[in-house]
Amino acid sequence: MYHLGHDEFIKRALDEDIGTGDITTISCIPENAVSRGVFKAKEPGLICGMDILIRVFTLLDPSVVVTPFVTDGTYVERGAVIAEISGNSRSILSGERVALNLVQRLSGIATRTFEAVKQVSGTKAVIVDTRKTTPGLRVLEKYAVKTGGGRNHRFNLADGVLIKDNHIKAAGGIREAVVAVRKTAPHTLKIEVEVETMEQIDEALAAGADIIMLDNMGLEEMAAAVKRINGRALVEASGNMGERNLREVAETGVDFISIGALTHTVKALDISLKFFE
Amino acid sequence: MYHLGHDEFIKRALDEDIGTGDITTISCIPENAVSRGVFKAKEPGLICGMDILIRVFTLLDPSVVVTPFVTDGTYVERGAVIAEISGNSRSILSGERVALNLVQRLSGIATRTFEAVKQVSGTKAVIVDTRKTTPGLRVLEKYAVKTGGGRNHRFNLADGVLIKDNHIKAAGGIREAVVAVRKTAPHTLKIEVEVETMEQIDEALAAGADIIMLDNMGLEEMAAAVKRINGRALVEASGNMGERNLREVAETGVDFISIGALTHTVKALDISLKFFE
Amino acid sequence: MYHLGHDEFIKRALDEDIGTGDITTISCIPENAVSRGVFKAKEPGLICGMDILIRVFTLLDPSVVVTPFVTDGTYVERGAVIAEISGNSRSILSGERVALNLVQRLSGIATRTFEAVKQVSGTKAVIVDTRKTTPGLRVLEKYAVKTGGGRNHRFNLADGVLIKDNHIKAAGGIREAVVAVRKTAPHTLKIEVEVETMEQIDEALAAGADIIMLDNMGLEEMAAAVKRINGRALVEASGNMGERNLREVAETGVDFISIGALTHTVKALDISLKFFE
Amino acid sequence: MYHLGHDEFIKRALDEDIGTGDITTISCIPENAVSRGVFKAKEPGLICGMDILIRVFTLLDPSVVVTPFVTDGTYVERGAVIAEISGNSRSILSGERVALNLVQRLSGIATRTFEAVKQVSGTKAVIVDTRKTTPGLRVLEKYAVKTGGGRNHRFNLADGVLIKDNHIKAAGGIREAVVAVRKTAPHTLKIEVEVETMEQIDEALAAGADIIMLDNMGLEEMAAAVKRINGRALVEASGNMGERNLREVAETGVDFISIGALTHTVKALDISLKFFE
Amino acid sequence: MYHLGHDEFIKRALDEDIGTGDITTISCIPENAVSRGVFKAKEPGLICGMDILIRVFTLLDPSVVVTPFVTDGTYVERGAVIAEISGNSRSILSGERVALNLVQRLSGIATRTFEAVKQVSGTKAVIVDTRKTTPGLRVLEKYAVKTGGGRNHRFNLADGVLIKDNHIKAAGGIREAVVAVRKTAPHTLKIEVEVETMEQIDEALAAGADIIMLDNMGLEEMAAAVKRINGRALVEASGNMGERNLREVAETGVDFISIGALTHTVKALDISLKFFE
Amino acid sequence: MYHLGHDEFIKRALDEDIGTGDITTISCIPENAVSRGVFKAKEPGLICGMDILIRVFTLLDPSVVVTPFVTDGTYVERGAVIAEISGNSRSILSGERVALNLVQRLSGIATRTFEAVKQVSGTKAVIVDTRKTTPGLRVLEKYAVKTGGGRNHRFNLADGVLIKDNHIKAAGGIREAVVAVRKTAPHTLKIEVEVETMEQIDEALAAGADIIMLDNMGLEEMAAAVKRINGRALVEASGNMGERNLREVAETGVDFISIGALTHTVKALDISLKFFE
Repeated sequence: MYHLGHDEFIKRALDEDIGTGDITTISCIPENAVSRGVFKAKEPGLICGMDILIRVFTLLDPSVVVTPFVTDGTYVERGAVIAEISGNSRSILSGERVALNLVQRLSGIATRTFEAVKQVSGTKAVIVDTRKTTPGLRVLEKYAVKTGGGRNHRFNLADGVLIKDNHIKAAGGIREAVVAVRKTAPHTLKIEVEVETMEQIDEALAAGADIIMLDNMGLEEMAAAVKRINGRALVEASGNMGERNLREVAETGVDFISIGALTHTVKALDISLKFFE
Repeated sequence: MYHLGHDEFIKRALDEDIGTGDITTISCIPENAVSRGVFKAKEPGLICGMDILIRVFTLLDPSVVVTPFVTDGTYVERGAVIAEISGNSRSILSGERVALNLVQRLSGIATRTFEAVKQVSGTKAVIVDTRKTTPGLRVLEKYAVKTGGGRNHRFNLADGVLIKDNHIKAAGGIREAVVAVRKTAPHTLKIEVEVETMEQIDEALAAGADIIMLDNMGLEEMAAAVKRINGRALVEASGNMGERNLREVAETGVDFISIGALTHTVKALDISLKFFE
Repeated sequence: MYHLGHDEFIKRALDEDIGTGDITTISCIPENAVSRGVFKAKEPGLICGMDILIRVFTLLDPSVVVTPFVTDGTYVERGAVIAEISGNSRSILSGERVALNLVQRLSGIATRTFEAVKQVSGTKAVIVDTRKTTPGLRVLEKYAVKTGGGRNHRFNLADGVLIKDNHIKAAGGIREAVVAVRKTAPHTLKIEVEVETMEQIDEALAAGADIIMLDNMGLEEMAAAVKRINGRALVEASGNMGERNLREVAETGVDFISIGALTHTVKALDISLKFFE
Repeated sequence: MYHLGHDEFIKRALDEDIGTGDITTISCIPENAVSRGVFKAKEPGLICGMDILIRVFTLLDPSVVVTPFVTDGTYVERGAVIAEISGNSRSILSGERVALNLVQRLSGIATRTFEAVKQVSGTKAVIVDTRKTTPGLRVLEKYAVKTGGGRNHRFNLADGVLIKDNHIKAAGGIREAVVAVRKTAPHTLKIEVEVETMEQIDEALAAGADIIMLDNMGLEEMAAAVKRINGRALVEASGNMGERNLREVAETGVDFISIGALTHTVKALDISLKFFE
Repeated sequence: MYHLGHDEFIKRALDEDIGTGDITTISCIPENAVSRGVFKAKEPGLICGMDILIRVFTLLDPSVVVTPFVTDGTYVERGAVIAEISGNSRSILSGERVALNLVQRLSGIATRTFEAVKQVSGTKAVIVDTRKTTPGLRVLEKYAVKTGGGRNHRFNLADGVLIKDNHIKAAGGIREAVVAVRKTAPHTLKIEVEVETMEQIDEALAAGADIIMLDNMGLEEMAAAVKRINGRALVEASGNMGERNLREVAETGVDFISIGALTHTVKALDISLKFFE
Repeated sequence: MYHLGHDEFIKRALDEDIGTGDITTISCIPENAVSRGVFKAKEPGLICGMDILIRVFTLLDPSVVVTPFVTDGTYVERGAVIAEISGNSRSILSGERVALNLVQRLSGIATRTFEAVKQVSGTKAVIVDTRKTTPGLRVLEKYAVKTGGGRNHRFNLADGVLIKDNHIKAAGGIREAVVAVRKTAPHTLKIEVEVETMEQIDEALAAGADIIMLDNMGLEEMAAAVKRINGRALVEASGNMGERNLREVAETGVDFISIGALTHTVKALDISLKFFE
């Protein structure tokens, strides 16, 4: 999963946490002391971020060795050891918090996605994320969604076209907006249109939209929309999906369900580092 | 609340979200179109991050005007308008997501803190945060805790001394660790020691610890600890406090309750931007 | 056309050109001297980069005023004045080279694109660019292509799918590659496949490719390919198009012609700054 | 040729090209697949940039091995293999475009310089570059000029003094400008003066100029100027030299011919990467 | 002593010193020449910065080997060899100045601190530094103070509370200021108050200040202050201590003497690099 | 004196000093409090850095107004008010230390240079600096030397050629080194050679050196060298000049005296900020 750019992000995170120096550790721990310990899941969940866990320590001190016991996407039970670490005690202690903050968060997102995917299993609906990610962590958080079994929606405003109500107003209608985009945007991008009514669906289909996003519709309306579209475009359900019954939504026949809460409302998975005596 | 360094953070966030250009907006919206709209809370909560909201748009386009209707720390009801925005339509649409992602998250943290503070009101216990923040957002998230009525624990490993079990092991005991720190750390920092037993409390007091952190203790043990310490050091309760009954903890007489969940397990407050017709 | 991130680029360019200080100018020109001058095209061409021209000076010295006389996309004759400049003499002289280096290059690209577009006018073929841009200048150079009347192909490896021969080999066939992409890539992206034979075209169509890129085909083969595809996918001609007769290529009926030479083989448009006496 | 700072430049270039991830490659190519291939010149030319070629892949993935078959400055024929590459398939595919964009451009500059140098061979004239380089690539492009057999003029406004018409006007005359510079600039720099007439040459010589730049002179005027200067200063011919007959210019007896077109009007050398089956 | 962030600092320093290339070295020294040499102290002093010395060369060229002969904090005599270096001649010459500029400066600070510490030896007074450091070098300079036997005062405005006259004025009195800080600042920080009179000392003690800084007091006044405080707070002497008789100050019984001159008025220790023949 | 790039430097300095927030000031001083104060010289000296003083506060808070009362290069007496400041109290207090650290240091360098220049007044000798500057501050410190009446030697290894003993050894002699440089370095740079003996002087002159640096010579030897050179090259005296009698050195007839101590051994000028009541 490694991505150029993560290094700068991790360095900033370490800098943020270490500041001008880990004064407790420097004071108490001899410069050359070595330690060994394990990272343990303190609750069940889907692990995500093992490469990041390793990289945090490598960047801080290349001599610290982290041995992963699971790969990303593994569901572990409470108490599972996910990795072993050994090396300079000071480096391990100084990197611990950043490593845990990241892996706990990513595993939390992966776990939640995993549960959402399970809820719709057997239907054709695919769980996708949104741009409601934590500023600075988008690539990582979207990776966590993928690890949990979801798929990614666009990563930014450049790699996907999504015509929303404000665009429609400004362009003077759905047809006008779609035409404008088709003339200007790279031909490599599909065109997605957000709709709220059946009339808008007809308009979007007539304009040749590739994907139709049903915004905040009730279940019956959604099912009717899917029927009306009838395969002429991909269908995506959207709008507070984090609080909906996903199975019911999936059973309306939509192709995608996009859920902002996957990344904006996160419960960190509890993971800890324990030193051996 | 403004802090040097937020600008770089916001620019990176905008860069992350806009990528090589907001192609939908550029295609549909005329270059000089202007719009007006409002930011609305879609659920009740404590607002935090108004300066950031404004700054996102100022950095993107200095001509966009955001007029705040509330100040940070204001509790608003569902439907409350928290700010008005007007200016270039493209700029507003391109900055919307980053602005919302930040304000929703900070308001979520402030709201949760506010609720924690309410639970202990009337006791002397002060709610404080931890270093379990999102990498890259520590100063902002700790600001949100303060806005919610909490206080900040140390910001990084340099501006507070906290001697934990691993430090104690490595130093050969609590006394040894405290002595080592007192000889090395700036004299401007207090010394905090994490303890799990009464014996450790005695050791920490004998060594002259300024603050004693009770790690994962039961209520009775905590009350006994407070009694034993008897004002000779500040007392901080810690360990999964996000899942504890805070009032009960507070009533043991501790001075501080530190809660990692304030920042590691966040529910974004639902806020949206609506354009006027 | 302004894009967040250009500022950092311009600052690096100024830093590269000014180094530790413009010693000739500092030595000869009084600190408060002011000058006025004009930017003139010394050959005919399509102007591109007026915002950048202005921004270079604004970043160097906000008091320098650049008044544009043309907008991007204007075709000017030899001798045309494209902008006037006035302000601190030192600042104007120190920023001159960076400003010219950028505007000359962008105008060169726009002019070449403009000529390519003219060659295919009346056909349905659209001229598009490639990723063969100068490292560091992609967004600017692609903007120049658009200014010249062309369209943009994908900006980077994330915002478009293009399955090339090496991908096909590794995936075990066109069908396998398309299936793999459809399972993994965001559903907002179209799938483009590069082909060299009629068999590959059939395979790509069967797999459901959205765009078929004809790589280095002769004119007759191209025409046959267009016929065979028959509207079931968009068709893009590619491969040394900078040295082909574009009209002939267009007349085969392809939808897009992508030309690397638009950006990798550039003739700067000659523009100069002349001070008034 | 390696220079501190190239790493940041290459990382930015990779970031620009890869964006949030090479989605085609990630989707089609197994994570641990390995490939081997060769970089081939598809037209004859002077190769430049082998260190950069290697460094692009090293920064992206230290396990990719690039074995150069030629050194910078080697003239190769059409079809020549200039390097072999082997390693992780994903890394090779994701780094390919950036590597080629750079090496093609540098080799194009080196080839053009090489041809210019050939044209003046046997004369004492030395071909030099200018500051008309691509913003961000100056050190690399000037290295390509040197590789092609040319020499470098100043790298920036700090490491060479060049008094041009605008400086002369502002200082009140050539003598005044030279005196001002001699009093202010480091004594380690020569003083070059741009002239257009014989009178200015006399003035510059009287003021003690070290180098005289003849701006846009005809051949006869140039020869007369060289005669008049008669060794009292170095002589540099300048002004649209990219479109002049360099041999004729050289035969006027000038010491240097500076050519902006070496770097501002570049034809990339065609080089490609082919995988082995 | 190594600290994340030093690398960026060293790279900027190398970039500052090497500019677009070490032209003398590149011209005179063959690309693969190797050299060996030694770093020698040309005057007696306390060495500081060996890790930095090594790191400068490692970052420039990982193949250069620096073998330290002393550790930080070693007092050496005139002529002592402190390290040997061997490797690529160009790299050694290009890194020499930056390495020496840093080690000479840090050793100068360490030496001065060492002398100050010697002056107060036998008393309980501890020599501490201030924030009067060179911008950009604070962590390094404070490390040098520690190496010289001193201790560090706060590193920045966030990791220590120091209430000075202007704060007192603005808050309306010492008591008000201390109360305000206690309510707002992290409970992990001690509170230090700067005083000029006995009345202020009483006020500060009454307010519960942890540290009292005596600003610019005469010796007798200082002794009286220490007596009055009588262990109820730590006592720090401050104000032009660089020009005071430190022993006399120490003998007043203060706990700390903070000396800005340790870092703001530095005499570099003379160290040179000599190549073997 | 302003130079692009100072802004980044100042921001890093502010970031270094403010850390995660000026907790004392935030706690004691109301958000909207305003103050007025003056910067005063507490000892006589030559002021340098007024633009930087202003810029520190502008970058921190554009609403703070600094009114300079002197220009750079003014000699002031003890007690002189050099600037007035007014605006937000928090901003003034948070920026104070960085502003003072810079201005005190630059004024210290300017003052020392001024004294050196005075010592050689009436002779033709010019005082110049070296590359022995503080890493990160070279442009600023060299500006201070110029402000003090000195001149600048090369700024980095790219903008001046200086052939030293190690280069001579590696090249095989002075002649070989000079020839190598003349073939490779830009023709805009003079060639300086460091010599220790009369024989080397003859060699350097024969090779056509533009500047001869006399390294660590005694006064008589220096005078003899000047005589021998007799105007055929510029002459620079060098080597521990900070501890020599500059007048005596100047009277040997050298053109330049380069003094490392101007920047490596600095006494900050004492300047303070006092608030009005």
